[in-house]
Amino acid sequence: MSTSPPSLTGDHERAMLERRARLLGPAYRVFYERPVHLVRGEGAWLYGADGERYLDAYNNVACVGHAHPHVVAALARQAAKLNTHTRYLDETILAYAERLLARFPVELGQVMFTCTGSEANDLALRIARAHTGGEGVVVTRHAYHGVTQATAECSPSLGRGVAPGPRVWKVPAPDGGDDSANAGRRLAAEVDGAVAAMRREGVRPAALLVDTILSSDGVRPEPAGFLAPAADAIRAAGGLFIADEVQAGFGRIGERFWGFARHGVVPDLVTMGKPMGNGHPLAGVVARPEVLRAFGSRARYFNTFGGSPVSCAVGMAVLEVLERESLAANAARVGAELMRGLREIAARDGRIAALRGAGLFVGVELRDAASGAPSPDLATRVVNGLRERRVLISATGAAANVLKIRPPLVFTTEQSALLLEALSDTLRH
Amino acid sequence: MSTSPPSLTGDHERAMLERRARLLGPAYRVFYERPVHLVRGEGAWLYGADGERYLDAYNNVACVGHAHPHVVAALARQAAKLNTHTRYLDETILAYAERLLARFPVELGQVMFTCTGSEANDLALRIARAHTGGEGVVVTRHAYHGVTQATAECSPSLGRGVAPGPRVWKVPAPDGGDDSANAGRRLAAEVDGAVAAMRREGVRPAALLVDTILSSDGVRPEPAGFLAPAADAIRAAGGLFIADEVQAGFGRIGERFWGFARHGVVPDLVTMGKPMGNGHPLAGVVARPEVLRAFGSRARYFNTFGGSPVSCAVGMAVLEVLERESLAANAARVGAELMRGLREIAARDGRIAALRGAGLFVGVELRDAASGAPSPDLATRVVNGLRERRVLISATGAAANVLKIRPPLVFTTEQSALLLEALSDTLRH
Repeated sequence: MSTSPPSLTGDHERAMLERRARLLGPAYRVFYERPVHLVRGEGAWLYGADGERYLDAYNNVACVGHAHPHVVAALARQAAKLNTHTRYLDETILAYAERLLARFPVELGQVMFTCTGSEANDLALRIARAHTGGEGVVVTRHAYHGVTQATAECSPSLGRGVAPGPRVWKVPAPDGGDDSANAGRRLAAEVDGAVAAMRREGVRPAALLVDTILSSDGVRPEPAGFLAPAADAIRAAGGLFIADEVQAGFGRIGERFWGFARHGVVPDLVTMGKPMGNGHPLAGVVARPEVLRAFGSRARYFNTFGGSPVSCAVGMAVLEVLERESLAANAARVGAELMRGLREIAARDGRIAALRGAGLFVGVELRDAASGAPSPDLATRVVNGLRERRVLISATGAAANVLKIRPPLVFTTEQSALLLEALSDTLRH
Repeated sequence: MSTSPPSLTGDHERAMLERRARLLGPAYRVFYERPVHLVRGEGAWLYGADGERYLDAYNNVACVGHAHPHVVAALARQAAKLNTHTRYLDETILAYAERLLARFPVELGQVMFTCTGSEANDLALRIARAHTGGEGVVVTRHAYHGVTQATAECSPSLGRGVAPGPRVWKVPAPDGGDDSANAGRRLAAEVDGAVAAMRREGVRPAALLVDTILSSDGVRPEPAGFLAPAADAIRAAGGLFIADEVQAGFGRIGERFWGFARHGVVPDLVTMGKPMGNGHPLAGVVARPEVLRAFGSRARYFNTFGGSPVSCAVGMAVLEVLERESLAANAARVGAELMRGLREIAARDGRIAALRGAGLFVGVELRDAASGAPSPDLATRVVNGLRERRVLISATGAAANVLKIRPPLVFTTEQSALLLEALSDTLRH
């Protein structure tokens, strides 16, 4: 993401950017040095006001593709019929809850609905704190878990401008250069250390909250299995293991529907969001029933729009498309093709320091050719170079030097080849 | 809201209630002793699976009426076209921001979008804390401002099961039995007292956060103007005045589009939600630009679904219908008719202790005929008695003895008469 002042060619886009700053204020950021002005989407394609077609290799939210007709139809049909809330009996809500929970291990038997991943993580923290009586949370060093006050505290990736929470302790993310057993042991030892540190300050542990594919830490899925010992460690200390599936979940990683399954662990709480409604504000928390007891007995929970009949109809349609179109299998297949192509590029370009990924969630770590140091400048140049070639991605990681490739799950072999060609070309210039 | 185990006639509804408890867990509550199973909505009517028609005199969310065709069409049209986010340039977002801000005093020149009122209040608190460097928040004694951790702390109405925030101080709500100057002076003195109390504990004030029609405190709109001296008081102490318009805003109170206008005050931050998208998850914070500066310079803000093109298209359609159908004027007119009818009922029924309201936001305070004490039991009986007569309302207030009447703004003279007749009948039995 560019933080330098965007340079635009079009007068109209320049005027839009001025209106944006005037109307939305200083906290909003726009992608790219030359921001993209979009007017339409279909599948993995986005269409610009400039008449150009952009390949979307970034937006995981539109998991079944932009403007998928089955999802749009379900949205329109339910909105024309009924949109109330969870304080009335409603068949759509129950049917969706059943269908969603069927995708989870039996231990994870209950779901609570919210509108955003931030709300889901915020609710999971409330639940964990009520269940454990503790307050302390362990997160990875460059984590992102949301924008509410309680989740922003747990999001060191928001930078030093956001006060780190006094109830939050950080552990380093595995760097992938290790086997699963060693990486798991090391992370578990770090969690033990964090718990010991919070106890020294009189804080009891509530939870380990972690992406099941570490995302803002630089797209770190490897080695599969490393989260299991850390989950054991937080539980041994009396805390809960919260798996943040906001980015990894819903088939993105290909071989498994959820990131936690890849680690061979069943979490206490699972949070989900972005792709759940293909852009409709739908998110939620899935839980072991026993961990909801303390929270539910003490406080009612009502989220006006969360789990509305319309949200649930949309969520159901998304699951239907994911299944009918076998999109998890597609993510596995096209993700593997993409990774093969990236390996070929890396073999002839020493600036690619590492390739990491699972399914269609891929990180390309870039370094300076001369010094070997992480190169956020190169990442910025590549992200903007791809944008000029009408391919949309972004960058992430503590040093902002990791290309983040996370397209809709309908991404095809041909689209993967286009992305690879554009990346090769960008790296040559 | 009933907390006793619901009794149902239908086997199907009994099975639904069991599925609900099993799937959604213990934190969810359902309205009424015999919960309502709804299948369709239109205007202020809701249709049950029992084939009956229910008059909706409760749901402010569906402000322009359930399933309004203009809003549904805008939703479906934009969802079929493009639904991305605020990191690309988008005309729909800017057009809606302009149209929404045009409804505010010029000082309130910027808007940030969220998905829920909880997120809006949570964000407003983050902004106020960044701007003032303080942490302390003043709320009314039985306030409700949301379900995120930071807003639940500010919501004593959630009950003793939700830990009151260590950064939150409470002031009593005006009881309406006073003139504006006196009530204003008294509330301002309470705010001064709360600020003094927090300073004794080493906490600096960040904000006074208050409904502009006190809602969960028992629907307390009177006397108009009482908030102005309190706003002066918090500002004199270095804090901000945050007007929570989640319930009062968007024309509900009839004569003014926003509750704060009725008090003759321009807030520093205004939060809004429920009716903003007529059920679509759309909410936001409108601000004086100078109070966003500190927050925006320190932290980026990105809400994946907040202010998406679809949300903004829906928000625009809601504003268009509010204007085209003159729904604020309708709220003023029908609200006045409803209040006249309620006065007639109160004149012959001593159990009605007070009537309060502005436009179509009305509270009916109930007391025990013998003791004169607040009667939550009578409120429960009336709410459930009306449900049996197929009229939907709820109860609120610290003693849960205030009937909360808050219908869609399309409520008609005839529907008001039906409600009054059903209420008379219920009170006679």
